[in-house]
Amino acid sequence: MNSLRREDVSEAGLAVDDLQETWRILAPEDRLEAFFDLPRAEAEDFFLDLTAREEHELISLMPVTQRRSWMRLLPPDDAADVLQECEEQGERDELMALLDEQTRAEVTALMAYAEDDAGGLMNTRYARVRPDATVDEAIAYLRRQGRDKLEHVNYVYVLEADQRLVGVVGLRELFTATPGRTVRELMLTELFTAREEMDQEELGRLFQQHDLQVIPVVDEAGHMKGIVTVDDIVDVIQEEATEDIQKIGGTEALDAPYLEVGFREMIQKRVIWLAVLFIGESLTAAAMGRFEDEIAKAVVLSLFIPLIISSGGNSGSQASTLVIRAMALGEVTLGDWWRVIHRELSQGLVMGAILAVIGFLRVVIWQLVLHSYGEHYLLVAGTVAVSVVGVVTFGTIVGSMLPFLLKRTGLDPASASAPFVATLVDVTGIVIYFTVASIVLRGVLL
Amino acid sequence: MNSLRREDVSEAGLAVDDLQETWRILAPEDRLEAFFDLPRAEAEDFFLDLTAREEHELISLMPVTQRRSWMRLLPPDDAADVLQECEEQGERDELMALLDEQTRAEVTALMAYAEDDAGGLMNTRYARVRPDATVDEAIAYLRRQGRDKLEHVNYVYVLEADQRLVGVVGLRELFTATPGRTVRELMLTELFTAREEMDQEELGRLFQQHDLQVIPVVDEAGHMKGIVTVDDIVDVIQEEATEDIQKIGGTEALDAPYLEVGFREMIQKRVIWLAVLFIGESLTAAAMGRFEDEIAKAVVLSLFIPLIISSGGNSGSQASTLVIRAMALGEVTLGDWWRVIHRELSQGLVMGAILAVIGFLRVVIWQLVLHSYGEHYLLVAGTVAVSVVGVVTFGTIVGSMLPFLLKRTGLDPASASAPFVATLVDVTGIVIYFTVASIVLRGVLL
Repeated sequence: MNSLRREDVSEAGLAVDDLQETWRILAPEDRLEAFFDLPRAEAEDFFLDLTAREEHELISLMPVTQRRSWMRLLPPDDAADVLQECEEQGERDELMALLDEQTRAEVTALMAYAEDDAGGLMNTRYARVRPDATVDEAIAYLRRQGRDKLEHVNYVYVLEADQRLVGVVGLRELFTATPGRTVRELMLTELFTAREEMDQEELGRLFQQHDLQVIPVVDEAGHMKGIVTVDDIVDVIQEEATEDIQKIGGTEALDAPYLEVGFREMIQKRVIWLAVLFIGESLTAAAMGRFEDEIAKAVVLSLFIPLIISSGGNSGSQASTLVIRAMALGEVTLGDWWRVIHRELSQGLVMGAILAVIGFLRVVIWQLVLHSYGEHYLLVAGTVAVSVVGVVTFGTIVGSMLPFLLKRTGLDPASASAPFVATLVDVTGIVIYFTVASIVLRGVLL
Repeated sequence: MNSLRREDVSEAGLAVDDLQETWRILAPEDRLEAFFDLPRAEAEDFFLDLTAREEHELISLMPVTQRRSWMRLLPPDDAADVLQECEEQGERDELMALLDEQTRAEVTALMAYAEDDAGGLMNTRYARVRPDATVDEAIAYLRRQGRDKLEHVNYVYVLEADQRLVGVVGLRELFTATPGRTVRELMLTELFTAREEMDQEELGRLFQQHDLQVIPVVDEAGHMKGIVTVDDIVDVIQEEATEDIQKIGGTEALDAPYLEVGFREMIQKRVIWLAVLFIGESLTAAAMGRFEDEIAKAVVLSLFIPLIISSGGNSGSQASTLVIRAMALGEVTLGDWWRVIHRELSQGLVMGAILAVIGFLRVVIWQLVLHSYGEHYLLVAGTVAVSVVGVVTFGTIVGSMLPFLLKRTGLDPASASAPFVATLVDVTGIVIYFTVASIVLRGVLL
């Protein structure tokens, strides 16, 4: 991080930077030692920058007497995240008992929500005023609230006595308004809100589509529950993209940094999918077994099998990743399947035709130079070319439709991984190839 | 967006929601018409929510006389983005001329930066005070600044007369401080800053690692240039993830929503990679050609070729996507290659061994039930098993190292797409398989 600059960098400041760089390669015990070597103020800043997973790890390594002050340093939503990291109820209760009474109540309320719901992401410390307050009263009230830690003060939420959210007023507007006016006169009443149970992926799209900085979270009756700020959404968006990428690559989502996943866990997350694909792919051996006589008669046919089936796998994995990402961004919804299949069919035919020409030329040129494919090389080249058109078109359609099918049945479209699509297409590719061959080469080679 | 609620939803409000939902399926001309059907205030909100690409499209469709008021609605950073969308210099100059003088100066300054640098993302309207101002003076000054559009007022930047950034003070602190104290006494002097030329990906990581809401941008001498807010970074992070996912799928990055990319452009972005992979994969035909005699003698060997080479492709694409994502998140850097190869080698061997057992059993069971593979089926099963260990291990190492190699040579690691890795591994897989076969089956089948 060369481009970073800290003004008045102290010795301690440098130590923090050093520790941030070496942190992930330290063993847990060494981390604790290095952490306690920092001056208290630096250690606090450093601690607050860690992920919930890392904060939990540090706290569980600390002597019991040290834990309270570090748990109490955390704002309620972060404390809830740390508690979510506990694997045993006993440990969770112990850490929970360290919090002060008010925070404990807030944390308990937050933990009732699923971690990836709006409710699980929200912060309960937001700026609030009554609609009938005057501008001066509101500012004075906010100055008192400001002494507690407020997460975000750009927007002030206007709540009725029963906590119903009725509007929002920008701090800017409040600042610059005539002192005697009331909040009600200034507030905007049309605002985006999220329900507590809104999924974090949908919430992320809402933030992004409307360039929002904060979204208030309300219950069914419109009572204000908290706010979600865009900086929390940054993490959500990264996490969702990471999960999708890992699934597209044919792994289960790791849920932790690559280098920190243990050997056993990593094997489990990877080998299950590999084994499923391997068993699926073993159908290719069965498919080819049915054409064993053809292969025996014309060994030359077997040479092009990897070429042909891989062209279907490649075009299929292109199509599936394009559709998966478009779905995640909300650009394509279930109802668009017909438009997508229409596009992909024509795309597949054109791309298949281009590859077919390349394939035809490949066989002909090889024959002219090396005489590898015998006297009927033109028919062989034709078989390859026609098969490639079929296989690429088929791959494109399977790849683009599989995410729709998965989503329709309630599964994650990102599971339509490149390897999964390739496996599906391989078996069919073999059948297409030998069917074409048996038509083109009948009476000649077969 | 069922969970969305707008208080006091007006007819016009509903029309906006409707339009947001149908927008992407409308033809450009229909979009303009529907847009002009909205009441002015609604249309303005709607316009500001669009992407720069869409804003540019609308403006270029409008009658010339309408354009000025819409261009002037945009804050400087958004106006700069719209101007970046112009393909012709003439059009850019025309739109630029519509802006007021001050904004034009700001936009010109912003456009000097690359679109994906910190400089290109930043906003020039931030809250600023002098270090020697008292709290009361600062608040009064901010209330005046507040009348212009300030992007973000949570943080107030403290600048010397020569625009050098010396500190930051939270609005909260300013609010609650004793009126007679000076800004210098309150300000924090240790803060994260970004240089104008910092890449947007790095900037995104900085925001995320430290949970920042705003980062000030400074030049080499420490002069304040603007601020980048986290809501702009949300778009950046999504874009970067989209690019990576599309490349992993073996396409060029689309740079536009899937359904909006034209037929010709889409074919180009997809078929070039497909053709490169196809030509690369045609080496498998050459590799198999060298083993034509073996295949002729033992056709049974050819049946397992797709199974064996795909196991290498699958394990390789797992490894490459895991490493690509870990690199994008900053979890793995170039210097980690040795740790990664160490992990992947052992992972590959274990996973290969597990698949080998499955493969061995597959051949044996098939033989016992269907008698497909002749009297030497145990040797065939052994050949498959040993080859799978070799191919999976090789695939895992190639898949994990290719992103390092690409990054080391200055290319994008995400280009180590699943299809690319599979193609690389296929040729070697064939060689491994037939080499193992010629050792295990010599004197028996070969």
